[in-house]
Formats: sequence, structure tokens, C-alpha cells
Amino acid sequence: MKLGLIGLGKMGMNLALNMQDNGHTPVGMDLNPTNLSTASAHGLATATDLTNLLDQLPTPRIVWIMVPAGKATNSVIEQLAQTLSAGDIVLDGGNSHYQDSIRHGELLASHHINFLDVGTSGGQAGARHDGNFMIGGDLATFQVVEPLFKAIAAPDGYLYTGPVGSGHYLKMVHNGIEYGMMAAIGEGFDVLQHSQFTYDNAAVAKMWNNGSVIRSWLMGLAQDAFSKDGNLDDIKGVMHSSGEGRWTLDTALDQQVATPVIAMALMMRYRSETDDTFTGKVVAALRNEFGGHAVDHE
Amino acid sequence: MKLGLIGLGKMGMNLALNMQDNGHTPVGMDLNPTNLSTASAHGLATATDLTNLLDQLPTPRIVWIMVPAGKATNSVIEQLAQTLSAGDIVLDGGNSHYQDSIRHGELLASHHINFLDVGTSGGQAGARHDGNFMIGGDLATFQVVEPLFKAIAAPDGYLYTGPVGSGHYLKMVHNGIEYGMMAAIGEGFDVLQHSQFTYDNAAVAKMWNNGSVIRSWLMGLAQDAFSKDGNLDDIKGVMHSSGEGRWTLDTALDQQVATPVIAMALMMRYRSETDDTFTGKVVAALRNEFGGHAVDHE
Repeated sequence: MKLGLIGLGKMGMNLALNMQDNGHTPVGMDLNPTNLSTASAHGLATATDLTNLLDQLPTPRIVWIMVPAGKATNSVIEQLAQTLSAGDIVLDGGNSHYQDSIRHGELLASHHINFLDVGTSGGQAGARHDGNFMIGGDLATFQVVEPLFKAIAAPDGYLYTGPVGSGHYLKMVHNGIEYGMMAAIGEGFDVLQHSQFTYDNAAVAKMWNNGSVIRSWLMGLAQDAFSKDGNLDDIKGVMHSSGEGRWTLDTALDQQVATPVIAMALMMRYRSETDDTFTGKVVAALRNEFGGHAVDHE
Repeated sequence: MKLGLIGLGKMGMNLALNMQDNGHTPVGMDLNPTNLSTASAHGLATATDLTNLLDQLPTPRIVWIMVPAGKATNSVIEQLAQTLSAGDIVLDGGNSHYQDSIRHGELLASHHINFLDVGTSGGQAGARHDGNFMIGGDLATFQVVEPLFKAIAAPDGYLYTGPVGSGHYLKMVHNGIEYGMMAAIGEGFDVLQHSQFTYDNAAVAKMWNNGSVIRSWLMGLAQDAFSKDGNLDDIKGVMHSSGEGRWTLDTALDQQVATPVIAMALMMRYRSETDDTFTGKVVAALRNEFGGHAVDHE
């Protein structure tokens, strides 16, 4: 099918190429002219603005949004609500908060435009080949675009999850699990790194990825990383985050469900982003006050 | 090669069949006559006691121990130290603490008997086919038995890890990672289970296991479990543990390395094993004392 694809960044470009490889015809739009020329160089049709994009699409028009969650996605959806027609279909493949997606669905529904919220996993490699998709929205709308998912997903790698919001909710939880799994792997290698034995981290990850209980795509990525830099000397242990771990924890707190592993994984990310903590200053000061224990000074 | 295999429980029996399938000749020994008849029914040679076992083996004799860690393993190793000869080889494929393995290696070395400590992963399925093995000990000894590991492990699924103790240390850390990964998966599905949406847990696990970042053998096992019982109504959330998570945390504490995710995974297992906590009683009592907040009574 021919569809619009708004956002030709790392994920969007790979998705467009994936669609093209598998018999579909995305028309790419991006505000960045470099991304547009890259797309053209790959044989993709492109559009320089929304009007130009929509002019190139058959009706009902199908538009896949792949831009950063939050302001950028909100803005594109508000524009689409004004410019699309009843019966058109919008997909948000980004990492929107599921409550934003519910709002977006309501806004578009008020214009009789259909909306699917699509959690996308598998990283850049998955966007390019054999992706993973969690799709919320109206079932009939899903069925219209299902051939697209069948074409770009891994076998069994997409799921219709229910009403609008359920796709991004599931992607949020997926990322919460990812935080915990990654932290567990990191902590384990930390205990190896400090042991009395000397391990070849890349060899360990490779062996663990072949037959062990903890074999996983993430362990394979660990093997890749250690193969390039055996003790990761060139990488600082600063763990940034883009929001979904936090949302998972927020949601667990709303539910009053105990998720200490995901909480710790998130908080250790925050800890890693700061050289010192006020917690540490306070505890050091109190030890000094009651016990005369030495403090380190700036 | 022909070798002795002491312990024909769930892991030992599967390992023996794996060895037999792949051109090796284990002679199984077990105190339980039922296990011995099962082994015989599978065409395995068996022995009823240690003397009988050792009589059946060529020299240098190779004996693989697959009995519970702790007392049972200690006892078998002490007996082997008394009965084997210089140049024989003992492998401990169980979940011994690496410090026990270092002691065992020293004891056997004092009798000029070679020792390999072998961390075994992959569960019962891995013991039966394509296992995963982490092998510590003398390199020359490892090289003698390497054909056995090549035969029973997954491709690239075994690793020589260094001196005695390094195999079981690595297996310990593997299990610590496993605790964290499993807890992350569990917590994620808990946040799904309490959501405003209704998910098909088996379908979610299947989809996540095909192309997502969190695809893993454990996610496949989650799919299997949910396929049998979609909301696990028949399983209580009591998470027993067999020690390796605790040892990982002990080791991290000795190293003063922060592993909060593994710690939380372990402590939530302990919490799950008790209906109530004294912590809870104390906190409820204190809230009542300072604020008159209601307490629940027995």
C-alpha cells in the first residue's frame, strides 16, 4: 500500500526502507532536507510538506508518524486532524505516552479520522528488518493496515492489542522490563569485573547467549559491545533514559503494584547521571555529627 | 569417552542421555534404585555403588558429579578423594558455591586428582540437548574432556573460564542475572495485569519474543506458561530460591559493588515466601502510635 511516513530519522528511515523492500510504497516527509535527500537516494518518494504529502496519497489516506514523542507528535497530530478527511487513517509509531495516544485518538475521532497507536520495538535493526509492533485502536482499522505489519514485522512479531492506548501502554511496559533486564545484565558483569578471576567478557556473553537460561537479544548486544571494547574503557557508565521506564513506574505507583526491580533500574539511571548526590552529602554530614567520622571535601 | 556420572536426578539423567546420544558412554550411579532402572531402560550402563562404578571405568578415570550442592557434593568429593588415583579427573556439574569448589580442588589436588568446576545452565531442556557449560580448572585437564563438552553443549555453548572456582563463580553470577531478568519480566506482566486494558498474556509474550528488544529464552518460557494458564490462576506467587542469587548478592557486598536490582529480586523472593512481615507489623504500629491510623488485626 502507498502511505505517508512523517519523520525520516533513525527509526523512520529504516522503517521506510523496510516497507519499500517488502512491497509497500512509503512517501517520506521530513523537515530536514538531508534526510529527504538520503531517502531519495534510496529510491523513496518524498514530500517537502504536509500538503504535498497528502496530495500524493490515494484515499483513504494512511499516514504513519515517526517523530519524537511529546510536542513533535502532538503538533503533527493536530495538523493532521485539520487536514485529513473522514475515513483516513493515522498511525503513531513513536514512543508516545499511552494517555497522550488516548487523547490523540479522541481528537482524530472527532474528525472521523481513524487512529492506531503503534508501539515499535527491536531498535534500529528491527525497524529495518523484522520489526516488532504492538497495535491499539479500532479492529476494523487495524485490519485495513494489517498487510503492512505482516510485511515489515518479524514472523509473529506484531499484535493487535485492543482499544486506542493499549499499543503504547504495552510498549511502555516492554521498556520497563527492558530497564530491569539491562540493569540485571549490567550488575552481573559488574560482579564479574570485580571478581578474583579474570573473565573475557565478550567470550562470556557469547557462551551465555548459546544455550543458557539468560540467552537473549540483549546478551547478544552485550557480546557485540564487549567485542569492540572488552572492558568498555571508552564508555562512561552514564545511563540516560527517554521516559518509558519512568512511565512504567508512575503507572505501577498509580496501581499500587510493587515493582522494585524496575524502580531500582530507573533510579540507578538517575544516579549515574550525577557525579554526586545531596543524599550522600547529608549522610556523610550526619555520620560526622554523631560519630566524628571523616567526610570527604570538595 | 567412557565416564562415571554420579547422580541421575532431573539434570543428571538428561545429561547422561545427551552424552549417550552424542557418542559418549556414561555409567550412571545413583542411590535411588528407581533412577537406576530408568537409566537402564534408556540403555545406559549403571553402577550401584562407587566401587562398582570405578571398576567399570578405564584410566584415567573421569567422574562427573551431578548431585545437590553442599553436603551431598562435599560427601561425594571426599569419597572420590579417597578412592580415585593420581591423574583421574573429577567434574562437579552441580551448583556448588565457588569457594566450596576451590576447597574441593585443593583437596583433590592433594591426592593428585584433577578437578573441573562446571557451571551448568539451560535447565533440564539444556541438559538433554544443547546445554551450556562454564568450566574452571587446569587447562590441560579441560582439554582432555573438551570433546565431551563439544558433544553435549549448544554450538559455542561452553567456555573454559580459568582456574578452579571460576566456572561456578560465573554460574553464580549467571543466576544473579537470571533473578533480575525474571523479576523484571514478572513486574512488567504485573503492570499489564492491573491495567485498564485486557491483554492476552500468552499472545503478548509470543509477540515480544519475535523481534522485540526483550526477546529471550525466558520470554519464551513465559509464553509457554501463559499458554497453559492465561492468568496463572493455578500458580501461587511464591518464589523459592536455591541459593545462587543470595551468593551473588553476598559477593557483591564483599566487593562493595551496588547491585540493587539483583538485591530487590532476591528480597522480593523472600517476601513472597511469607504471608506477613514483622516489618509490616512495626510500620502499622508506628502509624497507629503517631497518627491514630487504623491497623488491621489478626
